[in-house]
Amino acid sequence: MRVFILYLNKARTDGNFNLDDLPSSGGRIDVLCRCATAALWLSHALRKDTKIIGVLNGSPNPPITITIDSNILRGVSPDERSVASWIKKALSDVGMRTRSGIVAERKSFQDVVREYSNHPIYILHEKGENIKKCALEGDDFVFILGDHIGIPRNDERFAERYARAKISLGPQSYLASSCITIINWFLDNANPT
Amino acid sequence: MRVFILYLNKARTDGNFNLDDLPSSGGRIDVLCRCATAALWLSHALRKDTKIIGVLNGSPNPPITITIDSNILRGVSPDERSVASWIKKALSDVGMRTRSGIVAERKSFQDVVREYSNHPIYILHEKGENIKKCALEGDDFVFILGDHIGIPRNDERFAERYARAKISLGPQSYLASSCITIINWFLDNANPT
Repeated sequence: MRVFILYLNKARTDGNFNLDDLPSSGGRIDVLCRCATAALWLSHALRKDTKIIGVLNGSPNPPITITIDSNILRGVSPDERSVASWIKKALSDVGMRTRSGIVAERKSFQDVVREYSNHPIYILHEKGENIKKCALEGDDFVFILGDHIGIPRNDERFAERYARAKISLGPQSYLASSCITIINWFLDNANPT
Repeated sequence: MRVFILYLNKARTDGNFNLDDLPSSGGRIDVLCRCATAALWLSHALRKDTKIIGVLNGSPNPPITITIDSNILRGVSPDERSVASWIKKALSDVGMRTRSGIVAERKSFQDVVREYSNHPIYILHEKGENIKKCALEGDDFVFILGDHIGIPRNDERFAERYARAKISLGPQSYLASSCITIINWFLDNANPT
């Protein structure tokens, strides 16, 4: 299982945002939509055993997590608006799984980290060890990353207590969605047959 | 300069598509929007010296190219709808550069390939040489890739006459936008200092 946990500082925590203006009305919920596409989609197929968990910390009702699990996702296209429309539905009925398989729950970032604490956790960080030098073996990984604002220091410290390492993707600073694509590719090719 | 040339089989060639339904009304113009974000954006910044050229081959008026040059792009956000709204404007006035810097022109795939024929051209192809084994050095690259349908055989043959090599990204088949992200990362890290 690959799990991507994305910390979103301002993403709106109810369904009251405008699909025509995700960045502003949704508190950059577009970032989660792009990350979901990057995490879960291959060409013509969904990945198997891959999850993205967005932790939403915007108004009016933080924190809320959105979980999208590739093994149960259905009826969603990889375009931002399609993903966003299902996230909106999930947020309108917290605790109930939508027909798409997407679910919103009342959990904090720390709750989620604790939940995955018996898996190998890695924090994406510009000052971490270069991913090319990390021995990422096996098929069980949890990656934690922040949005364009970053993870608040106290939450980052909390995650560090459970993390195996901090890793970086090199000298450039990438969009969160690009980070996820790169990690997926890196893992796909880490143990070539 | 890095240039990504994306062949889009069905993308609509006038501005008459609905921003609320890019995949269907736009003939998968959402693919170009995601590819533009993958090609041009870093975190908090645009790349320098990077272009994406989408070759649109859908109705009613093919072919049309959309060129987005990171060096002149402005006022556009990385979300799909923002990119799409400027592409729509460019398509409504072919030959005129929009305020965003995005321009639509009456050119075919073969015109574009010919235009870049004095640069090192690589075709992304599942049966190509693995990118990890290619000596991609320098900072001048043109990459050709197809959408989810692929490049028609006659256009692919034409490109092969100018291409240095066909390259692959490994055993998985990725979304076009993911391919671009991976290539950008690979080049960013090909010659680490």
